[in-house]
Amino acid sequence: MVDNKQLIQEKLAQAVEILNEFEIDAWVIFTRETFMLPDPIMDLLVGLNVTWQSAFIITRTGRKIAIVGYYDGDSVRGLDVYEVRTYHHGVGPALRETIEEINPQKIALNYSEMDVASDGLTFGMYRNLCRYLAGTPYIERFVSSERVIAALRGRKSDTEVARVRQAVASTAAIFDAVEAYVRPGMTQIEIAAFVKEQIESKGLDYAWDPKYNPIVTCGPNSGIGHAVPGNTVLERGHTLHLDLGVRENDYCSDIQRMWYVLKEGEESAPPDVERAFDVVLGAIKVGEKALKPGVLGWEVDKVAREFIVDNGYPEYMHAFGHLLGRSAHDGATVLAPRWEKYQGICDLPVEVGNIFTLELHVVVAGRGIMSLEEDVLVGEDEVIYLGEPQTELRYIR
Amino acid sequence: MVDNKQLIQEKLAQAVEILNEFEIDAWVIFTRETFMLPDPIMDLLVGLNVTWQSAFIITRTGRKIAIVGYYDGDSVRGLDVYEVRTYHHGVGPALRETIEEINPQKIALNYSEMDVASDGLTFGMYRNLCRYLAGTPYIERFVSSERVIAALRGRKSDTEVARVRQAVASTAAIFDAVEAYVRPGMTQIEIAAFVKEQIESKGLDYAWDPKYNPIVTCGPNSGIGHAVPGNTVLERGHTLHLDLGVRENDYCSDIQRMWYVLKEGEESAPPDVERAFDVVLGAIKVGEKALKPGVLGWEVDKVAREFIVDNGYPEYMHAFGHLLGRSAHDGATVLAPRWEKYQGICDLPVEVGNIFTLELHVVVAGRGIMSLEEDVLVGEDEVIYLGEPQTELRYIR
Repeated sequence: MVDNKQLIQEKLAQAVEILNEFEIDAWVIFTRETFMLPDPIMDLLVGLNVTWQSAFIITRTGRKIAIVGYYDGDSVRGLDVYEVRTYHHGVGPALRETIEEINPQKIALNYSEMDVASDGLTFGMYRNLCRYLAGTPYIERFVSSERVIAALRGRKSDTEVARVRQAVASTAAIFDAVEAYVRPGMTQIEIAAFVKEQIESKGLDYAWDPKYNPIVTCGPNSGIGHAVPGNTVLERGHTLHLDLGVRENDYCSDIQRMWYVLKEGEESAPPDVERAFDVVLGAIKVGEKALKPGVLGWEVDKVAREFIVDNGYPEYMHAFGHLLGRSAHDGATVLAPRWEKYQGICDLPVEVGNIFTLELHVVVAGRGIMSLEEDVLVGEDEVIYLGEPQTELRYIR
Repeated sequence: MVDNKQLIQEKLAQAVEILNEFEIDAWVIFTRETFMLPDPIMDLLVGLNVTWQSAFIITRTGRKIAIVGYYDGDSVRGLDVYEVRTYHHGVGPALRETIEEINPQKIALNYSEMDVASDGLTFGMYRNLCRYLAGTPYIERFVSSERVIAALRGRKSDTEVARVRQAVASTAAIFDAVEAYVRPGMTQIEIAAFVKEQIESKGLDYAWDPKYNPIVTCGPNSGIGHAVPGNTVLERGHTLHLDLGVRENDYCSDIQRMWYVLKEGEESAPPDVERAFDVVLGAIKVGEKALKPGVLGWEVDKVAREFIVDNGYPEYMHAFGHLLGRSAHDGATVLAPRWEKYQGICDLPVEVGNIFTLELHVVVAGRGIMSLEEDVLVGEDEVIYLGEPQTELRYIR
């Protein structure tokens, strides 16, 4: 297991700064049985599971208090960062006392209509919280922690960037191995099995559900999206597309790569395939140019989307990019159109230290899909690719 | 990966029966990005992850409808059980239409103050649901699904019982291997590492967070509860206690076993250790006798707790038992005192088909803890142990 003690201390210090930036007095993470139902922020700020109802409270003055069941006390103390208060019978009294002692004017809770990563508070636990604090002024002082969490997850520390970079490098090595291994006639299942073998033999983990990781798409008849690899055979004259993300030292990559399967006698891809590649690459390039601190998510998506449409392809029906880090879909800001499902999160600004995927696809009639995805870091003045981007079509012979 | 397609179909059929029993017209599971924030019921009824806001609706007339993002459509269709409706821009319109079409008088949602397993609806998603259904009568018709989920998780099918039984057998085999391997002088870390090697080499998974699995307690100075194994050395004259749960074919075991480390010249444990074992075993036996369909959770705990206290030991500060199945802590009914933290769930009745752990401990001064845990199935007329219970102290020589 990865030792994240130092990382947790770094992120907690960053959290205190962010609470001050947003003028929030106390942030209450209220959760239970996290092995069954994890609040996504627990990984970043606690790094272990708790059993009974537990509150982790961070104040803008820098206090970090944990109120946990008695039998979870020792493990939380082991983090050397929380003032730990334990209980036997119920969390209510200690929670109420602690809140009264802090007396916060503004209390952030993990609920968000727009961002799953900021929505770890269940409705039942919200009701419990209201019950424990009934009759106090505090239940009128709740606000969403969504901007706090967007900043905390989104602004990567150097340690976090280094870990994503490493995951990206490991993914690139797997793509190279795939290219050396794959031959026409193999099925999606066989190709996926080879990738899984690579992931597991290198001691890596999966950045998302291994059922759809890798996604292997080939030819005109394979499904698009989160499809399970099937018995479709890789044929000459078709494209091969892989969407793969690994988790290494708890941080993720999320990359798509494209190959064309050469026909007998061909030395390069036919013009329809080449053109699709150039347009997809071009869209990523214009998106990359638009990706600057302060620009809103939907504005970045817009230029890439327009580039595709202007070049005669139908628009892609997904986001142009999402944050990447502790999770493959790292919550908060998306580079996405202003559709209902992206409401709010596509209006958040790009910030320095964000790591985004840049991704989109078009369909090449009779050949398969053409889809690329790169992982990039937003710097003060430039976008930094965290690995070698794909700038030319690759071939299977 | 385990193929749970048939199990999902079984549990869905059972869900429809239970909706009729509780007179609920529609049960709405409303979730998103389940890989990051899983509603615990998804494993039982869907068995795959979805990305965008998704509703799984089960009606008492037997309909099963899934409204999911376009790119998740194929994988949900692959279950061959849901009517699948997909969307590109947002779940709201299709969700509203579908609810209007069903026109339910009573709608169960996954929120529960008492039971984490029934509390998968986040506060943000609850707010989204209210927004999508604003102006309809349906937002006045929500009820908690907690009794539905307690019944569905709690009443195990034959397939589920067989899987738990298998996990229990594998755990017993590991305990035997531990006994053959362990010698005085080893540390908790070494013993835990051996257990993990056994789990992994047999292709098993962990029933709970591997950080605390197994829990290894030895001697008077090691922590009690969810403590990480440390450098404490196993000494002669002390007790050795393991708490271990494996997951096999997606179902769990959760068992505690006890050894005494014989001193030079000893052939059995001294009287203080023997007596502690007998009292703990006795408490489990009286609890087992009380575990009958219709009895409330706290009533079972009470007899075991009183037995301990009547025998001169302080009461254990935890529950006497919990449900076991898909998860080690399988939610709902607990055999626990009426403390705040067990409120509601200790008042639920024991039912035929429930699988419970029976567990408790006492401390033997200067020796360590004495703690047993068995996994049992509630039958019509009898309690069935799912493996060989520990009825005698075991020895390390």
